[in-house]
Amino acid sequence: MLTRIDHVGLACRDLTATISFYESVFGLTVASIEVNEAQGVKEAMLHVADAPAGSSYIQLLEPLGPDTPVGRFLERRGEGMHHVGYGVANITAALAAVGTSGVRVIDERPRHGSMGASIAFLHPSAVGGVLTELVQASRT
Amino acid sequence: MLTRIDHVGLACRDLTATISFYESVFGLTVASIEVNEAQGVKEAMLHVADAPAGSSYIQLLEPLGPDTPVGRFLERRGEGMHHVGYGVANITAALAAVGTSGVRVIDERPRHGSMGASIAFLHPSAVGGVLTELVQASRT
Repeated sequence: MLTRIDHVGLACRDLTATISFYESVFGLTVASIEVNEAQGVKEAMLHVADAPAGSSYIQLLEPLGPDTPVGRFLERRGEGMHHVGYGVANITAALAAVGTSGVRVIDERPRHGSMGASIAFLHPSAVGGVLTELVQASRT
Repeated sequence: MLTRIDHVGLACRDLTATISFYESVFGLTVASIEVNEAQGVKEAMLHVADAPAGSSYIQLLEPLGPDTPVGRFLERRGEGMHHVGYGVANITAALAAVGTSGVRVIDERPRHGSMGASIAFLHPSAVGGVLTELVQASRT
């Protein structure tokens, strides 16, 4: 079902400073910067690698305020790893298959993610404490 | 410097059960199971994808005891995301470059990682709370 590690999501307090760090130390480049009001974040996708099934990124997440999922995460756990996103060929089919397995999902239906992707989150309590995202990349 | 997301390391309490979960729900397959006494873990590499620069994995980590790095992690934070490992072409050169950037490293010299790789960890306090690993995959 999973075609690749699409991205690793990292929660940070200062998006600009964290982008600069990853650019200067690791040589990554910014593929996109977006504000996702529905998720309460300003986020950057830093390109790591290309592969036949799609590219891989580091996703940096700065909360739009303290009363957002990432804001509460930072308050509770501090900066660090927030979630992992896996590529899938068909988000609807993948979500149905996962549901059939009895895994608790956060998103019953796909919603909009970074760079035009369709995404859905699975509940960390159902995936060994790992907030897990399924990602069907945009074909554009 | 970074050629790919080599793996995401996940801390778990029961390696066998967690492997079964990833196999049955996500269709991943086990590439290796090893005990790393130096790191105090029993670990499994689950294959996710291949790419020109090397494959990507989910690495499941079960501590060999409570007084190990992963054992203490589980006690403090519970199951979940533990670290991210990035592929590099040359671990010695990458470690030197990171050191020149002033980033605090845990391993001054490469040591043995999963599947014959040479690895080095960078300190999470220097990388926005993210325990970060550089991985030069084995050429065998």
